Amino acid sequence: MFNSVLIANRGEIALRIARTCREMGLRTIAVYSTPDRDSPVVRFADEAVHIGPAAIRHSYLNIPAIIEAGKATGAEAIHPGYGFLSEDPDFAEICEMEGLTFIGPPPGLIAQFGDKAEARKLMAEAGLPVLPGSERALESTEARELADAIGFPVILKACAGGGGRGLSVVHSLRDFPQAYRNARATANAAFNDGRVYLERFVENARHIEIQVLCDNHGNVLHLGERDCSVQRRHQKLVEETPAPGLAPDLAGRMAAGAMEAARRLGYRGLGTFEFLVDELGRFYFMEINCRIQVEHPVTEMVTGLDLVREQIRVAGGLPASVSQSDISLRGVAIECRLNAEDPEKGFTPTPGTLTEFVPPAGPFIRTDSHATTGYTIPAEYDSLLAKIVSWGPDRQQALNRMTRALGELRVSGPGIRTTLTFIEEVITHPAYQDGKHTTALVQKLISERKER
Amino acid sequence: MFNSVLIANRGEIALRIARTCREMGLRTIAVYSTPDRDSPVVRFADEAVHIGPAAIRHSYLNIPAIIEAGKATGAEAIHPGYGFLSEDPDFAEICEMEGLTFIGPPPGLIAQFGDKAEARKLMAEAGLPVLPGSERALESTEARELADAIGFPVILKACAGGGGRGLSVVHSLRDFPQAYRNARATANAAFNDGRVYLERFVENARHIEIQVLCDNHGNVLHLGERDCSVQRRHQKLVEETPAPGLAPDLAGRMAAGAMEAARRLGYRGLGTFEFLVDELGRFYFMEINCRIQVEHPVTEMVTGLDLVREQIRVAGGLPASVSQSDISLRGVAIECRLNAEDPEKGFTPTPGTLTEFVPPAGPFIRTDSHATTGYTIPAEYDSLLAKIVSWGPDRQQALNRMTRALGELRVSGPGIRTTLTFIEEVITHPAYQDGKHTTALVQKLISERKER
Repeated sequence: MFNSVLIANRGEIALRIARTCREMGLRTIAVYSTPDRDSPVVRFADEAVHIGPAAIRHSYLNIPAIIEAGKATGAEAIHPGYGFLSEDPDFAEICEMEGLTFIGPPPGLIAQFGDKAEARKLMAEAGLPVLPGSERALESTEARELADAIGFPVILKACAGGGGRGLSVVHSLRDFPQAYRNARATANAAFNDGRVYLERFVENARHIEIQVLCDNHGNVLHLGERDCSVQRRHQKLVEETPAPGLAPDLAGRMAAGAMEAARRLGYRGLGTFEFLVDELGRFYFMEINCRIQVEHPVTEMVTGLDLVREQIRVAGGLPASVSQSDISLRGVAIECRLNAEDPEKGFTPTPGTLTEFVPPAGPFIRTDSHATTGYTIPAEYDSLLAKIVSWGPDRQQALNRMTRALGELRVSGPGIRTTLTFIEEVITHPAYQDGKHTTALVQKLISERKER
Repeated sequence: MFNSVLIANRGEIALRIARTCREMGLRTIAVYSTPDRDSPVVRFADEAVHIGPAAIRHSYLNIPAIIEAGKATGAEAIHPGYGFLSEDPDFAEICEMEGLTFIGPPPGLIAQFGDKAEARKLMAEAGLPVLPGSERALESTEARELADAIGFPVILKACAGGGGRGLSVVHSLRDFPQAYRNARATANAAFNDGRVYLERFVENARHIEIQVLCDNHGNVLHLGERDCSVQRRHQKLVEETPAPGLAPDLAGRMAAGAMEAARRLGYRGLGTFEFLVDELGRFYFMEINCRIQVEHPVTEMVTGLDLVREQIRVAGGLPASVSQSDISLRGVAIECRLNAEDPEKGFTPTPGTLTEFVPPAGPFIRTDSHATTGYTIPAEYDSLLAKIVSWGPDRQQALNRMTRALGELRVSGPGIRTTLTFIEEVITHPAYQDGKHTTALVQKLISERKER
């Protein structure tokens, strides 16, 4: 087992990882870009290394600078967090070559599952149902012909995408050629890889994902499901476990499918199998995320496990700290993401300095945030400001607690707007309160807002 | 069931109670003294009423002003919190007479158990073991003779005391007459009631308490034990559940005894049976607290129950939300009290304005506090600034998490000192880490500090 961890990330997740490292007695090394120099993780970590200016290609995607920081500080392992380099197989491979343990699956697995068309094909072979679609990247004509055969709407997906990025829904054959060209261009710009594939698009779906944990000792565990159907432009806003309102055995069948696929494909580490559930209750594999996810705290709240700790243990060659029979899921947990964005202006980010930030607290509330009074939200990065997580012995108590927590949150600063009111509208919406929400809820709410 | 609650308290507990009321859909009314006008609960509550100047006899003990505030705002119930009027049977009775539901046991029970000598007698009759001592208040001569017969050291206790106040240990017959006179004078000054009784004093004891919950539907539940052995001058500093290092069946026997006594004496509401455990593993009833306790969060963390919610339900005539078989205790929870006091100067309070207050957060950490950056700690009240609670699936993880949390806490302001470093010394002390600490630990640490 290693004794020190460099955290190749920023914001709330960098602080969250550093906390667990500290609890495990591991020395922590933060890296930071110029605008992040006063970030709490820089203060919290045992050491902190400046790796470049604001632009992420010069800082949080700057592999040589990060590796150099690791070597200079004697780091023995690297935790990539989510986003940035977390699913870059080259980065994972370079870490290994440089003698740094990469806290995540082996590079070969990341490469396989990082190509989302390839992952879809592998999962179908491993027995998971997939939506009608392509098993590889498609050229323009074959894509249009397949879309026509499947029937509209379809969704074009970047092979190199994932995490809700690089997606585009097409509603008719007439729109297809232009949509295909746009999708390729977007993929190329975002991922330096223009390849796209397609699937039937399911409207009014539920997004349900299964958390798995696989160690090097033959243990393949599942830690329950999460409902992440509340999304804006394929980005999750509210997540919950267990998923409310599913058919009784559905989550169990999805978990069994995910575990079987993980076993067949030799998965290692923490991973998430994302599924769509259609209105008839049929589920389809979408993609696998080979990293810790933003929404992992809800799973922690009901299992009592620290998922970052498990990730670190497994990367260090230790077995998972529990066996499947030890895992019991207690109560209900909900996470709301608070973004520094203005919902009145198309959710544009609102950077600035916080003159007041008092996170909610008290019984069964957890706030994961890097923000404090006086913190300056940089303009250059993701606008996630805080994750507010509530727990209750039943769903109603968890919901009531979340409503209370959102109500007590205090956040302000010149020019700063947040998604707080919008999130409050989501969780008090009858569809959400009844557990009958789908991926269409947020767009519906946005339309309703515009009408007012 | 009532629809509104006046919170007759201040500080962290007032905010904590208001949070649960909000979650239950109850209208909240805060009351505040002049120096508390900017306290977070004043802002959080639906209404807030000024009840008087700083001095507690004119504000938080000012029964007419509190009742008047309740009437003016249409409050239907009163939650007294802990301390102040929480165990004043007259206040409970006046509330009932004025048509306000008092959230606590009936006045008659509070009166019975509020006389600590009487409570001791009743509990002995109900089958609980008690230390050798007196069953009623004693005059000087009979007290001295009884002390001599029992053998020194003995402890003199104010009949009207409780919660660690009004206690004085006497080590020899020679010291007794003066100690007795001091004890009477102190009791008289503190409680307006000079009566004292005595018990054998156990050095190196464990302070273990059992949380019970009794509703009006015949349910008598116990919610596990708490170890509160870490005390300075009989005031608890660190609390934990389950109690580490007890003989396997000891806590169970104490719980069974407490439940049996609660049943026999017709106890109602939330209550705590406090016991001493001596070095031979024998336990003795000390006192019962007829209110929510400062350390209740550790019980919440392992049971998943909201104790204030249960208290409110029971006061409103509803049954407890769970039966004994529903209650499972998961993992280990530890609470550390952070006081604005200077350990280098005999723990003198250090009021002042906080220029920075960033409470610890993240996985399985809960901070209950009314403090924020900019908050002014008044000189007039208890110096409790925050309660930091950690949870873990096992004791080592809960301890590591607490150490991490204390390390990340940021608190400063001109003239403000806290017990943070002292608390860190306590929880990292080998005796505490091994779960072998007793009520003598803190004094030992203070002596060690002086030698440095």
